[in-house]
Amino acid sequence: MEKNLEYILKRGVAEIIVEEELVRLLESGRRLRLKMGFDPSRPDIHLGHVVAMRKLRDLQNLGHQVVLIVGDWTAQIGDPSGESQTRPMLSAEEVRANAETYMQQFFKVVDREKTELRRQSEWYGKFGLADVISLTSKFTVAQLLAREDFSNRHASGRPIAITELLYPLLQAYDSVAIEADVEFGGMDQKFNCLMGRDLQQMVGQTPQHVFLTPLLVGTDGRQKMSKILDNYIAIEDPPEDMYGKVMSIPDSLMMDYFELLTDVSDKELAEFRQQLSAESVNPMVLKKRLAREIVTQFHSAEAAEKAEADFERVVQR
Amino acid sequence: MEKNLEYILKRGVAEIIVEEELVRLLESGRRLRLKMGFDPSRPDIHLGHVVAMRKLRDLQNLGHQVVLIVGDWTAQIGDPSGESQTRPMLSAEEVRANAETYMQQFFKVVDREKTELRRQSEWYGKFGLADVISLTSKFTVAQLLAREDFSNRHASGRPIAITELLYPLLQAYDSVAIEADVEFGGMDQKFNCLMGRDLQQMVGQTPQHVFLTPLLVGTDGRQKMSKILDNYIAIEDPPEDMYGKVMSIPDSLMMDYFELLTDVSDKELAEFRQQLSAESVNPMVLKKRLAREIVTQFHSAEAAEKAEADFERVVQR
Repeated sequence: MEKNLEYILKRGVAEIIVEEELVRLLESGRRLRLKMGFDPSRPDIHLGHVVAMRKLRDLQNLGHQVVLIVGDWTAQIGDPSGESQTRPMLSAEEVRANAETYMQQFFKVVDREKTELRRQSEWYGKFGLADVISLTSKFTVAQLLAREDFSNRHASGRPIAITELLYPLLQAYDSVAIEADVEFGGMDQKFNCLMGRDLQQMVGQTPQHVFLTPLLVGTDGRQKMSKILDNYIAIEDPPEDMYGKVMSIPDSLMMDYFELLTDVSDKELAEFRQQLSAESVNPMVLKKRLAREIVTQFHSAEAAEKAEADFERVVQR
Repeated sequence: MEKNLEYILKRGVAEIIVEEELVRLLESGRRLRLKMGFDPSRPDIHLGHVVAMRKLRDLQNLGHQVVLIVGDWTAQIGDPSGESQTRPMLSAEEVRANAETYMQQFFKVVDREKTELRRQSEWYGKFGLADVISLTSKFTVAQLLAREDFSNRHASGRPIAITELLYPLLQAYDSVAIEADVEFGGMDQKFNCLMGRDLQQMVGQTPQHVFLTPLLVGTDGRQKMSKILDNYIAIEDPPEDMYGKVMSIPDSLMMDYFELLTDVSDKELAEFRQQLSAESVNPMVLKKRLAREIVTQFHSAEAAEKAEADFERVVQR
């Protein structure tokens, strides 16, 4: 399904930097390079990741090129998000196997034909100390400590390895290496994506735009969906599990899921909201619609019907 | 002149870490590797540098080995001391020429025969990103920001490039690369030298000892001797200049210069101090002795006599 540009840039978007310029670029007819990276130490994709992936697919449908980066170097550093500890480097074999797993899932949403696959080792394998010095001389400690999770950790006296400061710099350099036009990620990637923008400008490239999607709240209704918190719906979940997990989310999350994970029209969503606030509809009815939409996307309409029938028989009887 | 160990470890020493252990090691009869590094972007040696160099020479006379490191990689970063700006990398030719200049001066004090010359490029030329990650994962931001000049700059909002955090790490790794037993420097090198000690321990080497000399105050009587402040006496200064500059120092500095730059005995220095405090001697008489001692060291007794005669004729008439 080809969606129009206005819809792609408004529906389920947290922030675009710089929006007017990106619109102009998208309208120019040039085939853009859309960057997304992934950490091969975490090869499982859940619905939280799907939000940005759907945007990639929508823009592929308009003719643009996705560049998927296997973060085989940054994976060994580990981006800190509170729980950070330096991880052991993955072996080449582990990276290969995990990338395979990741891509099998990734290409359920994104078009493989319009995706260029790149590995960081292409450029970091031969990255020497002179390159590191050149890169690190362009950013200051204060700039990096301004990142919220770093500043919180620093203020509370929790250790930050020097290596962790390098993580955003390496992610930024990826944008230079592949000459990205746009980088995609959740709102928690804003800082890193903007570093890429800065770095490209410093080395004389056109700075990338940054396309940020909202963070999907997990099935617990409280925290960002994540495997570690066990509040996630994996895209590999079988239809019945997927259907049941969607049914388990709090009612208050339902409209976010509709907006971020389906193409049920804005008009229809407005009606749902109105019905919910007037209490003229049983929320369960809408949630079953949501569950069907999502299962259909990752499995099939038949699988969704069967999952719904199972759910009604086992849970609702 | 061979001096005894007790004299070497007490006279003109600021701090030795760990002193009792170093004494035991020096008494063990093993030939120790005494590390000193220099920045080839600053090839001129002045009396401030000589304080530590004299210790190297004293220990060479007892049979130990100096390892002089040409900092051809760290030179391009520049250690921050308030005025820091990232410097352009020196060309190989500039490094070679500056190292030549430096060594001509260095070997006026240190014995060339007992010196092993190493260049950082031997190990940093092939240092890859994996090595950088391994090194940077061993230290935290807070550890480095604890260094006084960093913490002052950070607190006052002045920028610190990420690269500058790498400087102490690279200097520390030098100790690993050459397997240093003792590192020498002025008190302002304490932090960096201790990093080397820590790093060696982390990689399974015996941690080096740290031999720190006091900072020599310059001819202005106020600040650390330095070329930038133009309060220095270069060891390349001709005898008359050197003599005249020593004569220009404030009387209050005289005893420090005697202690740090000459081998006039402790007994004699005690007498000088007593005479000065009793005002039974004209300070000028002692200062002329100091100037002769210093000129004799870098030129000759004859040159010192001639410089003194010139001084008396031109300045004192």
